Amino acid sequence: MTDHRFPANDPSLRSWIEVPAGSDFPIQNIPFGVGSRDGEAFTAMTRIGDTTIDLHALYEAGLIEDPSDAGGTGFMGQLDQLLLNGPGPIRALRQRLSELLRDDKALNGLHRDTIRKAMAPVAEVEMDNPTFFSDYTDFYSSRQHAYNVGVMFRDPANALMPNWLHLPVGYHGRSSSIVPSGTPVRRPMGQFKPSPDAAPEFGPTRQLDFELEVGFITYEGKDLGERITTAEAEEHIFGLVLFNDWSARDIQAWEYVPLGPFLGKNFASSVSPWVVTLDALEPFRTQGPQQDPLPLPYLRTEGPRTFDLRLEVGLTPRNGQENIICRSNFKHLYWSMAQQLAHHTVNGCNVRAGDLMASGTISGDTPDSYGSMLELAWKGTKPLTLADGSERKFLQDGDTVVMRGHAEKDGVRIGFGEVSGKILPAS
Amino acid sequence: MTDHRFPANDPSLRSWIEVPAGSDFPIQNIPFGVGSRDGEAFTAMTRIGDTTIDLHALYEAGLIEDPSDAGGTGFMGQLDQLLLNGPGPIRALRQRLSELLRDDKALNGLHRDTIRKAMAPVAEVEMDNPTFFSDYTDFYSSRQHAYNVGVMFRDPANALMPNWLHLPVGYHGRSSSIVPSGTPVRRPMGQFKPSPDAAPEFGPTRQLDFELEVGFITYEGKDLGERITTAEAEEHIFGLVLFNDWSARDIQAWEYVPLGPFLGKNFASSVSPWVVTLDALEPFRTQGPQQDPLPLPYLRTEGPRTFDLRLEVGLTPRNGQENIICRSNFKHLYWSMAQQLAHHTVNGCNVRAGDLMASGTISGDTPDSYGSMLELAWKGTKPLTLADGSERKFLQDGDTVVMRGHAEKDGVRIGFGEVSGKILPAS
Repeated sequence: MTDHRFPANDPSLRSWIEVPAGSDFPIQNIPFGVGSRDGEAFTAMTRIGDTTIDLHALYEAGLIEDPSDAGGTGFMGQLDQLLLNGPGPIRALRQRLSELLRDDKALNGLHRDTIRKAMAPVAEVEMDNPTFFSDYTDFYSSRQHAYNVGVMFRDPANALMPNWLHLPVGYHGRSSSIVPSGTPVRRPMGQFKPSPDAAPEFGPTRQLDFELEVGFITYEGKDLGERITTAEAEEHIFGLVLFNDWSARDIQAWEYVPLGPFLGKNFASSVSPWVVTLDALEPFRTQGPQQDPLPLPYLRTEGPRTFDLRLEVGLTPRNGQENIICRSNFKHLYWSMAQQLAHHTVNGCNVRAGDLMASGTISGDTPDSYGSMLELAWKGTKPLTLADGSERKFLQDGDTVVMRGHAEKDGVRIGFGEVSGKILPAS
Repeated sequence: MTDHRFPANDPSLRSWIEVPAGSDFPIQNIPFGVGSRDGEAFTAMTRIGDTTIDLHALYEAGLIEDPSDAGGTGFMGQLDQLLLNGPGPIRALRQRLSELLRDDKALNGLHRDTIRKAMAPVAEVEMDNPTFFSDYTDFYSSRQHAYNVGVMFRDPANALMPNWLHLPVGYHGRSSSIVPSGTPVRRPMGQFKPSPDAAPEFGPTRQLDFELEVGFITYEGKDLGERITTAEAEEHIFGLVLFNDWSARDIQAWEYVPLGPFLGKNFASSVSPWVVTLDALEPFRTQGPQQDPLPLPYLRTEGPRTFDLRLEVGLTPRNGQENIICRSNFKHLYWSMAQQLAHHTVNGCNVRAGDLMASGTISGDTPDSYGSMLELAWKGTKPLTLADGSERKFLQDGDTVVMRGHAEKDGVRIGFGEVSGKILPAS
């Protein structure tokens, strides 16, 4: 059997492709994305250092097999088709890619000229969303975030909703407006109340925000009517991405009762291009927060259930320099991915290959670890002061938000790169 | 220019294909669906009376053109691709189909033998969902329904939420679990509180319900960041379907604050197979309810903004006879489809060809017109008595729910057929 943790387990591994110091993409990572070289069709790719490798080209050259059993079309366009057969074929593909790209395998000398033809600098490749996101669900799994929101908008004494500690609260989001990293985001127009007693107005949002999230992308699930248990869940998770759930707080506040967020969220969400597999993250597994009360049996898990992923948010004003305004960690989440997926399917809801499930805002327990402007500036009452002296309660036109994430341990760094977006004025 | 209302305007039109008396599918309808004959690949179809006609076969025979400009692949599988180019090519296709299928066109005598090869009885055709529903949104646009829910669960004196009269409240739903009419629906398991003070439990829902809804399916919209105005909206609406938004009220009640319905809805939704075009429904256009307060300018419309569509719900116990438990009408909806679509895109959210937007439960202003068991049996306090003497507060295992809808005027009846589903026990 394949040891699917092979690549990240050995810090001595090196690629014959150059990897800059501090790169998120050493040979131990081998992520998957979808890119286009020179305006050609989008294909599945992996990345080593700052070099992309076109998997369709490797397939055409006979160097790798197609995990979708579809004669190479699995490598054309989005990754969804590659995910239909679960983790087995993807593990075999990563193992094979590792062998081809490592410098300690005599095998590779034979194929390097062929592989070089599939390579391109990341700067010359246009990246698209990794999958179609046939469905996208957003959870709300950071206790500190839910608590902060409860304190600000409801009752500090009862900040957490009664259901929050019993189930991973989540809601369905909009797939059509999920955009690749780098896509500018236009300030949305919408309806909101400028003050609690005022009549609703229509105009550009005055409270544009980001939310620092991490999403997971699924392998094909089970049939409608069947459920995925917590024990089975991780075998249905392909990998993780960074996710910015842009939010318009004033629009959201006016619309969200009783059916949840809608136009306050669905104008845009941004996703990082490289899916880092759960297998690559295995060495960084760690315990999550203690859960009290003990969840109902269908939500219980054994062993360390989360991952130590360091996250940060940078805000760069127009023509300004970057300010790191948040440092957080994926391990702060109260509800794990396995719990989220088990909950999502416990009623028989089916998940499909390429679905996206995001974490909700990831806030740690210190004010500099809060994952949204709403919390960092505490509903506008504690504006952030940036390096250029300007203040921020919410995002301004021209601001660029960049989120980054990586894991690091025993000399190996596995990362996501970044997801970025610049705010354009309302039109 | 084509008069796109041609087929439904003239009650004297007849098809050379038999149409049973009272059929929803006369020559004036010409709906679109996706079916499979004899286990063959699913293709686009239309229907006259109880006869389906395979559009891909007509295309292969050279009788019709492909609205997607894709050389016939537009007729393979779901309809999404056919909807990429807006209403123009679909209107031309319906005009051409009308000419081929009417008995007053000399043209058709030439092609009848060819067309007969594309025909099959509806009973011998398996129908699939009409599109992929790349995104699915559910609105909440019946004032009576929102009022009823408010009275039952909140405050009778303030039953409508403050935002309800100012915007069409909506939320994102789950696409993966939308199933074709006839698919059995398994009673979902889930977490709920058996009483307000009890600890949450896990088990089969005790409050399984239907919701009588009508959905519309979109043509391709505009780019992300652009909006569709109320004046433009109907040019982006392909047609309508019946929609049963199955709901588990106890699961929903426990989970839905603050982010809206999730597992209480996403275990299954059922959709009718034949999309009735907005053009076919044009003769049945009617004024909607008076809107007071006047909506904000971006939500205003001119002229009659809805359609007179008669709706009913039948409930059949296992081995029993059907009970018509609800008669309602699409025209009761407070917010029109044009208003829903304009609101959905006013923040720049993009819609794609084949998206589904459902109305929310359609309740009229009399108790026999309420569109859910929750309202019909008033939260279990007024159980329905069925013809077999049994009582219903919510749905029982073995119950079959059928929804039907049609418009009728000046001797022309245009209908949807039905959407049905039978409840299976929890597993």
